[in-house]
Amino acid sequence: MGTTYFKIFPIGFIKNKVKGNVELVIYEKYSEGLKGLEDFSHILVFYWFHLNDSRRERETLLVHPQKNLSKPLRGVFATRSSSRPNLIGIYCAKLLERKGNTLIIDEIDALKGTPIIDIKPYIKKLDCVPEATGEI
Amino acid sequence: MGTTYFKIFPIGFIKNKVKGNVELVIYEKYSEGLKGLEDFSHILVFYWFHLNDSRRERETLLVHPQKNLSKPLRGVFATRSSSRPNLIGIYCAKLLERKGNTLIIDEIDALKGTPIIDIKPYIKKLDCVPEATGEI
Repeated sequence: MGTTYFKIFPIGFIKNKVKGNVELVIYEKYSEGLKGLEDFSHILVFYWFHLNDSRRERETLLVHPQKNLSKPLRGVFATRSSSRPNLIGIYCAKLLERKGNTLIIDEIDALKGTPIIDIKPYIKKLDCVPEATGEI
Repeated sequence: MGTTYFKIFPIGFIKNKVKGNVELVIYEKYSEGLKGLEDFSHILVFYWFHLNDSRRERETLLVHPQKNLSKPLRGVFATRSSSRPNLIGIYCAKLLERKGNTLIIDEIDALKGTPIIDIKPYIKKLDCVPEATGEI
């Protein structure tokens, strides 16, 4: 108990942030997996908050949203905090272009050098919920 | 090279599917992390396709969407396939109720017993893209 874990292997990384756009590089060995991605206007980018991969950040369960001390403590699962038990980040981005194994997206809420761990197409009927409520 | 990996620890599991609803149990040690989640109508549930955690499924880069052989092969990153290098699944669910560390949601595209690896609130301004195009 407590020792079971699954392994996440980086599939690429955030290479650059240029003129407001962002370049993601997917490692050559995975590039076949991108076939057909250009059919989608938007993608879900999954990444790993690698700079926070410490026991302390993983054991943090309550945070002040946006590190704003005037906001009351919330559970990390009720925020997008980069402190959480598994350091998964997600960002819904506009896919501007695919050049081989490089993806150009409009923006991402993560630093240059951040490991990418998965890419999925954004599928409106699954992912878009106009009636959703709740803000942080 | 090729051996760097990050560790994912299950934070809970899919307990039951009852009358069309689904019960997620988050382990007691993480329950504080749920504080405030009930302020959101919808949540993003991240899970692990644990039954597919084999070299074969992780090395699969091309699939027929919905296992339909009449559909041309696509890259796994351009599908929601449960075969992919990192076995992350995501589902946007309606949060019906929170009872302590149990979450009742409307549905999920995963089996009973599947490990949960993260929960995030669905935030409309980040996650809902009505103009998104592309279908599988």
